[in-house]
Amino acid sequence: MFIQEHDIRVFLNIKEESRVKKKGLTKSFLLIVTTFVIFAVHAALNSDPLPSWNNGPIKQNIIQFVETVSDQKSHDYVSPEDRIATIDQDGTLWVEQPLYTQFIFALDRIKKLAPQHPEWKGQEPFKSVLNNQYEGLTTQDFQSIFAITQSGMSVENYYDTAINWLENKKNPRYKRYYTELVYQPMLEIINYLHQNDFKVYIVTGGAQDFVRTYSKKIYNIPTERVIGTAGRTKYSYENDRPKLIKLPEILFINNKEGKAEGIYLFIGKKPIIAFGNSDGDREMLEWTQSGEGKRLMLLVHHDDAKREYAYDTQSKIGTFSAFLMEEAKKNNWNVISMKNDWKVIFPFNK
Amino acid sequence: MFIQEHDIRVFLNIKEESRVKKKGLTKSFLLIVTTFVIFAVHAALNSDPLPSWNNGPIKQNIIQFVETVSDQKSHDYVSPEDRIATIDQDGTLWVEQPLYTQFIFALDRIKKLAPQHPEWKGQEPFKSVLNNQYEGLTTQDFQSIFAITQSGMSVENYYDTAINWLENKKNPRYKRYYTELVYQPMLEIINYLHQNDFKVYIVTGGAQDFVRTYSKKIYNIPTERVIGTAGRTKYSYENDRPKLIKLPEILFINNKEGKAEGIYLFIGKKPIIAFGNSDGDREMLEWTQSGEGKRLMLLVHHDDAKREYAYDTQSKIGTFSAFLMEEAKKNNWNVISMKNDWKVIFPFNK
Repeated sequence: MFIQEHDIRVFLNIKEESRVKKKGLTKSFLLIVTTFVIFAVHAALNSDPLPSWNNGPIKQNIIQFVETVSDQKSHDYVSPEDRIATIDQDGTLWVEQPLYTQFIFALDRIKKLAPQHPEWKGQEPFKSVLNNQYEGLTTQDFQSIFAITQSGMSVENYYDTAINWLENKKNPRYKRYYTELVYQPMLEIINYLHQNDFKVYIVTGGAQDFVRTYSKKIYNIPTERVIGTAGRTKYSYENDRPKLIKLPEILFINNKEGKAEGIYLFIGKKPIIAFGNSDGDREMLEWTQSGEGKRLMLLVHHDDAKREYAYDTQSKIGTFSAFLMEEAKKNNWNVISMKNDWKVIFPFNK
Repeated sequence: MFIQEHDIRVFLNIKEESRVKKKGLTKSFLLIVTTFVIFAVHAALNSDPLPSWNNGPIKQNIIQFVETVSDQKSHDYVSPEDRIATIDQDGTLWVEQPLYTQFIFALDRIKKLAPQHPEWKGQEPFKSVLNNQYEGLTTQDFQSIFAITQSGMSVENYYDTAINWLENKKNPRYKRYYTELVYQPMLEIINYLHQNDFKVYIVTGGAQDFVRTYSKKIYNIPTERVIGTAGRTKYSYENDRPKLIKLPEILFINNKEGKAEGIYLFIGKKPIIAFGNSDGDREMLEWTQSGEGKRLMLLVHHDDAKREYAYDTQSKIGTFSAFLMEEAKKNNWNVISMKNDWKVIFPFNK
């Protein structure tokens, strides 16, 4: 939102006038306020809510959708109560290549904890990690790495550990903190949805309490609107003070069909707009579309090797399969080209 | 909130005046609006936010707490972001005697489904239920009754079934629908907390999706702010349309220590105010109190046999043990006497 020079001049002129006539001060003050509000609204209405998006059908679809469901006169109007937006994180809100950030965190934890576990030198998957051989690691390996490195501590300790890592570790390609590698166009989407009274949720296959450590700061999304893969905790005491201890047990996996189940569990309503970028988001988009009324489904396609990465069917991380592309076409889902639809990728490119 | 007769007169006088002078219409209109806003704020500030509460230390504690944490000048100020309130349901927001409403619903489901299950006539716990012999039923019996009567259907079917039951079944003592048996003083608490930008959650040992069917309508609490005992669901398809099917498996039990775990899972922050009424709420209050800064913990004590029920240590439903009473004293928790602190019990008593 910005005010034009002309508007400021008008605003100041009125103010000067009001100072001359003493009796008219209160009334003039009200006039100033009204004038200011009118110009501010005017400026807001004419400003571009998505300046980092190139003009084109996708930007138009998003703006038209948000305007329509927020317009009380439209028969597609949706009350703020039901304006639910769900957005995947890895690859949709921030960089996921060459490895999910939380995996890098977990690998660093192994190295940090290794001196206390001499047996890891001869024990897989720790042995591979300690020798920097990550290629052969399976999803199950990562699960056991998570279980061991991110449990047995209180939720407060976990929070401190994660924050400390995030504030010190930088990404080697961009030489930036991982929390800086968020997509500027998506930050504008979150802001635009918030301005239109949407309830914006992150729905991630990643660890719920990892994402919650930074969601407010970098996305302006509070902890209670982060739904992710979650472990069990155990209520216990330390010096008579209650503590929640993280257990090495998964409560639920918030990926693929788990995303629809997680949305039902946490929100109890269907989203009306959903953003994803990989096969793990297919069911979330399908679930979103299955509701009545107007819906919008979008997929970020990584086709920009120069500014970010280009990958889809062949990538193990963030696979965007040929089947997903077919589904997108069949179901009229919007496939966002990072190369063509996004003017800038990161906030530091602005 | 109400406007005094004098205020209305002032308001109307100004309005008359404005009609006389045509040129001054806009300015006068603004004056009217301002005057109206000033009087409305004045009226709101002077009205009692908890009219169904008798004056006394508990009402004072609540009002003082809410005013302090909402006051930016106070060093106990809490930003709206962190103004989390958690309130138990059964026995705290509505009647739980002689049996939890969802148990009555489950028993009715057994009777309704019995013709399709002739084998139940000779099979416990169904046999006892069909013969109206409820005394011997254990918690485990109820769990298997829930598992069988409230699974195998889609979440939409479950919603319709619950709503249909709630709209038809009346409580024999009060001759009222169960959704009418809510406590007027607690509705005022929810409203008062909402007005002061609290995020108000129901945190119940009861079934999450049962409470969600009516939480918005009767408490003005949206589905995403209901945390309860939850079952697993399974994403599947019916005629190519996705469905979530309720499974007969419990995901987590949101009672006792489960309430603190559930609050962490769903909200990720500690409440600053919590209401309960039984042993099942002890850990929630303890968890609330363990946070830094000002906190308020309250327990509803059922000591009003005339207007509602009187029970505590001896009751199987909503047990308020001697241990809980000791804990309340030791920790400075507020014990609300329904008899002495509440002017009216139900909205229909007003």
